[in-house]
Parts: sequence; structure tokens; C-alpha cells
Amino acid sequence: MEQKEKKISKAIIQRLPRYYRYLGELLSTGVDRISSSDFSKLMGVTASQIRQDLNNFGGFGQQGYGYNVKNLYEEIGKILGIDRVHNIIVIGAGNFGKALAGYSDFERRGFRIKALFDKDASKVGKTYSGIEILPMDSIKDYIRDNNIEIAALTVPKDSAIELANELKDTGIKGIWNFAHTDLDVPEDIVVENVHLSESIMRLSYNMKSRSIGR
Amino acid sequence: MEQKEKKISKAIIQRLPRYYRYLGELLSTGVDRISSSDFSKLMGVTASQIRQDLNNFGGFGQQGYGYNVKNLYEEIGKILGIDRVHNIIVIGAGNFGKALAGYSDFERRGFRIKALFDKDASKVGKTYSGIEILPMDSIKDYIRDNNIEIAALTVPKDSAIELANELKDTGIKGIWNFAHTDLDVPEDIVVENVHLSESIMRLSYNMKSRSIGR
Repeated sequence: MEQKEKKISKAIIQRLPRYYRYLGELLSTGVDRISSSDFSKLMGVTASQIRQDLNNFGGFGQQGYGYNVKNLYEEIGKILGIDRVHNIIVIGAGNFGKALAGYSDFERRGFRIKALFDKDASKVGKTYSGIEILPMDSIKDYIRDNNIEIAALTVPKDSAIELANELKDTGIKGIWNFAHTDLDVPEDIVVENVHLSESIMRLSYNMKSRSIGR
Repeated sequence: MEQKEKKISKAIIQRLPRYYRYLGELLSTGVDRISSSDFSKLMGVTASQIRQDLNNFGGFGQQGYGYNVKNLYEEIGKILGIDRVHNIIVIGAGNFGKALAGYSDFERRGFRIKALFDKDASKVGKTYSGIEILPMDSIKDYIRDNNIEIAALTVPKDSAIELANELKDTGIKGIWNFAHTDLDVPEDIVVENVHLSESIMRLSYNMKSRSIGR
């Protein structure tokens, strides 16, 4: 299946990893085929919505058969670009950095955290979950020598802005940004933000509107 | 301003906390008024988009004046329900739980983490960032006695599903879910998910489509 240079909506990109997760759970419980209506019920999304979403990438269901779980799982994996390993470094070996290092789920999905970096010299040389903490001044060489594609930034706001600037010419393709700021990077670097403060504000908003709605 | 029982789109709820963050930054640098076009440039969102978003809540700009930063900041704070304190507990005192406990930004925004809970008896009684770890069997009493509205779940998938079930009748209004699963809760509880595996898959997808697009 060739992926066209077609604009895929953000909403679909939100849903694809969720399809992938549910298909992975089905696979691990031995389900190899699912009707489009059962899959719809499981996902809490209409069958036609699922069909529409998948049609953006060629469509995978067969009339009267439903979906082949393994096949669809693998195809969505390809669409998401996780049919191969991505090497990651985590910059900032605080609690968030250590939490990422210890999260085995990433490795299972093809995201391999290769090293942590911290400016605190007393942390350098220690390991968390088998991953070593290296000094900040070795970042650029490390990226080049280890085919690193993604840098996760778990540092304060100002450091994140500086780092995003320093990472510009290193060949890094993606920044996974946990700092509470937007980053200004060249077009060929993708930023995915995890803004926890915004997430909890959305929770607060939804709690408030739920209680007004009743 | 009375908030109507009007369906506000998810996209707007995504953008509101970001407006709030930028307005807070403007305030802290002493800016008290901003033209709608300068605000638009700063946010990277068209002026008419901002106007439309805010019109859902009554509208706040004045023709020829722009926006009063403090006023808009406070009004968006009210819309988000963060004009008052929300008490939170964090269940799971692993690295993520500790990271949340140490994140002073939440407190500044009216989210006060009151206690951590962990099933590991050897952790109970310890404190992180001044927040004590309490035993799991005291959760229900603690929620009742301390006016807790939000429970953050930083536990494995299966525990999160169990906990969501146990929290049902405690008066908890929101669950901030860091576990890699969807939670089935009654209608009066709001769930906000932070699915990191899905976030990094979106990063991977966008990296892939960016490189195809070029």
C-alpha cells in the first residue's frame, strides 16, 4: 500500500493508535477475526467511522468477513511507522525521565530508549532500568553515532527551548516535548507535545461542564 | 457570564488551556493589553479563529482595543474551572507519581496534590516533595475527609481498571488516567487520558508523513 501525500485529519491520527492498541489486545487474547460491528462496539466508534478512517489508507475490511485482526494490526503499525525500531534519547533524568526509561511498553512498540542525559554531574554514570545517564556535552556525538531519531525533553521550559535549538542540526527527526512550552523548530523536525498542565485543565473544564449539564 | 448547556467542540477545549498559558506568560512579563492581531501571531492561530473560540463563551475582545490580558486570563480561568482549588490524590507512587507530586506548576494553577497512595508497604509513610505516601486501604476515607475531587492513576493497566471501579462511589469527580487503557466509569465521572504510547505513535506517524511529504 502506497501512502499518498494526502492530508490526514488530526482526529484520524488521534484514533489510529487507539485502533492499534485494541487490535493488539485482541491479538494477545487469540482473536484473529472480528466483525465490523463487534469492532465498532469495542472501540465505541461507529462502524462507518472506522471504515472511513481506514479508507484514508486504502481500506482493510472485507464485506461479510469483517477485519483480519493480525493483518489490520500490522497495516496500522506500518501506517504509524512503528514497523521498525526508533532509537530515542531522554534529556533530563528527573522523575519523568526515569519514568520513561522504565516504561517497557515503548520497547514493545518499537521505541528503544538508548540513553538518558542530565546536566547534573552527580547523576552521570548511573543507570535506570538498564539505561545509562550520560553528560550533556556528549549529546550531539551520541545522536550521530547511535542513529537517534527522537529526543524526549523532560527538562524545564527554558532548557527545552535552548535544547530544541541545539538539536536543530543533529539529524534528530522528532522531539517529544514534556516541557510546558511550545518549541520553535525547523520544518523537518516534528514536535509532539505532552502538556500535562493543559491536560488537567481539560479535565477541570469537563468536570465543570458535566456538573452544569446535569 | 452564564455558561450555557451548549456543546463546545473538542478542538476548542484543546485550545483554551493554550490561550490561558500564553496569557499567563504575557501577564508575568507585564503586558496588560494585546491587539487581536498580535495575539493571533503569538498563538499561531488566526485572529478570527480566536474570536470564534471566545465567542462560544460570550466574547471578550473590544473593537479597536484588542484584549485586556488580565481580564481574558481570568475569564478563561473561570471557563476552565480553575478559579478555585481542586484537591487531587495520586494513586501509584512510582516515577510518574513522584514526578506529578514534584510538579509545582499544578499548584500554581489551582491543582493541589494532597497525598500519594501506594500498595507497597515499604513506601508508605515516606514523603516526596512534601507529599506523604499513604496506604491503599485508606483511599476511600481520605477522599471523603479531604474533599478530593480528582484521582490521578499512575498504576498498571489492570490496577487502573480495578481502581476506577472502586472509586465509583467515593464522590470523585475526575480521573486523570495515565494507565494504557480506557476506563469504564459512570457518567458523572470525567476521565482525562494521558496515553503516552499513543502520543509517541503520533510522533512516529508525523515523522513518517513529513519525510514522505518532502
